[in-house]
Amino acid sequence: MIFPYNQLFTFTESVFKSIGCPDDDATLATESLLAADLRGIDSHGVARLIGYVRLWEAGRINPTPRVGVVYETPSTAVVDGDGGLGLVVAPKAMNVALEKARVAGTGWVSVKNSNHFGIAGYHAMKALAHDMIGMAMTNASPLVAPTYSLDRLLGTNPIAVAVPAGEQPDFVADFATTTAANGKLEILQRKQLPAPDGWIQDKNGQGSTNPNELKEGGALLPLGGETGSHKGYCLGSIVDIFSAVLSGANYGPWVPPFVAFLQPPADPIGQGIGHFFGAMRIDAFRPAAEFKAHMDNWISTFRNARAVEGKQVLIPGDPEREISATRLIEGIPLLDPVVKDLETVGQKFGLTL
Amino acid sequence: MIFPYNQLFTFTESVFKSIGCPDDDATLATESLLAADLRGIDSHGVARLIGYVRLWEAGRINPTPRVGVVYETPSTAVVDGDGGLGLVVAPKAMNVALEKARVAGTGWVSVKNSNHFGIAGYHAMKALAHDMIGMAMTNASPLVAPTYSLDRLLGTNPIAVAVPAGEQPDFVADFATTTAANGKLEILQRKQLPAPDGWIQDKNGQGSTNPNELKEGGALLPLGGETGSHKGYCLGSIVDIFSAVLSGANYGPWVPPFVAFLQPPADPIGQGIGHFFGAMRIDAFRPAAEFKAHMDNWISTFRNARAVEGKQVLIPGDPEREISATRLIEGIPLLDPVVKDLETVGQKFGLTL
Repeated sequence: MIFPYNQLFTFTESVFKSIGCPDDDATLATESLLAADLRGIDSHGVARLIGYVRLWEAGRINPTPRVGVVYETPSTAVVDGDGGLGLVVAPKAMNVALEKARVAGTGWVSVKNSNHFGIAGYHAMKALAHDMIGMAMTNASPLVAPTYSLDRLLGTNPIAVAVPAGEQPDFVADFATTTAANGKLEILQRKQLPAPDGWIQDKNGQGSTNPNELKEGGALLPLGGETGSHKGYCLGSIVDIFSAVLSGANYGPWVPPFVAFLQPPADPIGQGIGHFFGAMRIDAFRPAAEFKAHMDNWISTFRNARAVEGKQVLIPGDPEREISATRLIEGIPLLDPVVKDLETVGQKFGLTL
Repeated sequence: MIFPYNQLFTFTESVFKSIGCPDDDATLATESLLAADLRGIDSHGVARLIGYVRLWEAGRINPTPRVGVVYETPSTAVVDGDGGLGLVVAPKAMNVALEKARVAGTGWVSVKNSNHFGIAGYHAMKALAHDMIGMAMTNASPLVAPTYSLDRLLGTNPIAVAVPAGEQPDFVADFATTTAANGKLEILQRKQLPAPDGWIQDKNGQGSTNPNELKEGGALLPLGGETGSHKGYCLGSIVDIFSAVLSGANYGPWVPPFVAFLQPPADPIGQGIGHFFGAMRIDAFRPAAEFKAHMDNWISTFRNARAVEGKQVLIPGDPEREISATRLIEGIPLLDPVVKDLETVGQKFGLTL
């Protein structure tokens, strides 16, 4: 079934208001969440609305957080999310980074006491309109085994970097630091298809193609596969340290799960989930027009490279931008189980989709 | 053959003085270069000394550069390396980042007009003694094909991040953004062994195990292999943009080659090679002692994870630290061809190894 963006927006905003979010926060959260649906990252969009509601029902989300800076220098800050929706905390923290960058050239914000923030790319892209490079990362529930580990100690810990161009569309990289994001594995589970080599290991650390392996003590593998997973492990670790050890959030195995039916660790080492945001003014390095002209040249050079038969070299952000343009006009397709979940949520609050 | 560190240091320092480096610069360059040998990254150490000398003979290295800041804000700077050795330019640029961080909380320095800087990890580690997180990256000669590309547009573009701990040894990640660094391929070439799947492609973009494929129009592959090379392509691109589009260095296919027998592009788009350095004071986020205690906990949690039979979970930097401790005492082993190259260099300047 296909839904116009505006229809999903109104519904989602009403849900967030129904759980007690102030109007502005409900709007912020809705924009953050639906950015995933628009950009084709369906696992992170309205499909998760029921998950956020269940976390709220379990008392694990504060709908009226006082999000604020608790520690700072001219170019840095720690933001306390006060247990709020990551979808609300993240845009506010990114604004702090942008403000710092305006004055000091760059701004770097580590966040504690937050929850899942949707897609990293959306938050990084907030820098683009200000002629800044934006960065966003977050830790997440432990599903990933470091190289040689049988224990799951890291989340899929995504990194997003958005770079403004001039006449070319902007460069927007947004990727999990695992071989495959958990959302891709969920798709294979639904279809009962085997996973490609290098995505997962079983409880003994042996490679597996069973898409249900995580339910049996298995783990996702860091980016890099058989000969390079130590590099993905490095990247995931850096995200965890910047997001949580710097801020005072939970890290490693202590990161609370997204799903309400799993309890958070009884002995938290910090507060909530952690994020990390960065903003760099491009004119803190060279005149903005000069940078953008070279960025245009960089992009067109890469896009016009000779490619393998039937393919084209893509610039990070190309596929998501195209999907976004289409879905704004043609609407957002939702799977039947997602529609059913949204109806369930609507019934709780007397809202119709 | 095994050489004491001090013997290689004295020889290398004399070589750098012989090509005209001022005494302080010769010392800086020697420390940077030999850090690779100490840490077991043999491809980037004295094995490359003859390469630097040949670049100097070709007039492509300025032994007396005036390295300086040409653009800045409170937390950023662009450094012009004046065509000097990257081994000299990089430590000076990293110092600028450390100075900025002291005042503004963080410091970010993009460098143009430089040359190869040795190993990224060494420069990032300069932050550790100051209770700062250090970062270093560099672009490099184009050997890597972006996803779907037949053209080589990126270097192996390494990223290093060093994080201070308390009682535990520091966390030091340092990795190429390719499946395998070029040095590892060179080892297979010498031994005439096939390369593992996912390292290289042939001139038609097909996977290959021929270690000599790069000489026949092939390319190294970005980190991530068959199903994830777009992520390594993102990472390598980010390094290229931060190092060169921000600073005004050459980027993509315009990055000049390290080897003197290959000419730099006739139509440079910028100046020399580019680097990017970052420094973040940990007490710009939370009290340093608090951060370090949690970092110790992070490290011991990961190191003590249950591991696959016969293995242990390593912390990034563990192997290099152990090799370094051994080599400082037992000396640095060099392959015969490397010793021969060093003797050739010595003869040029009347120096004995």
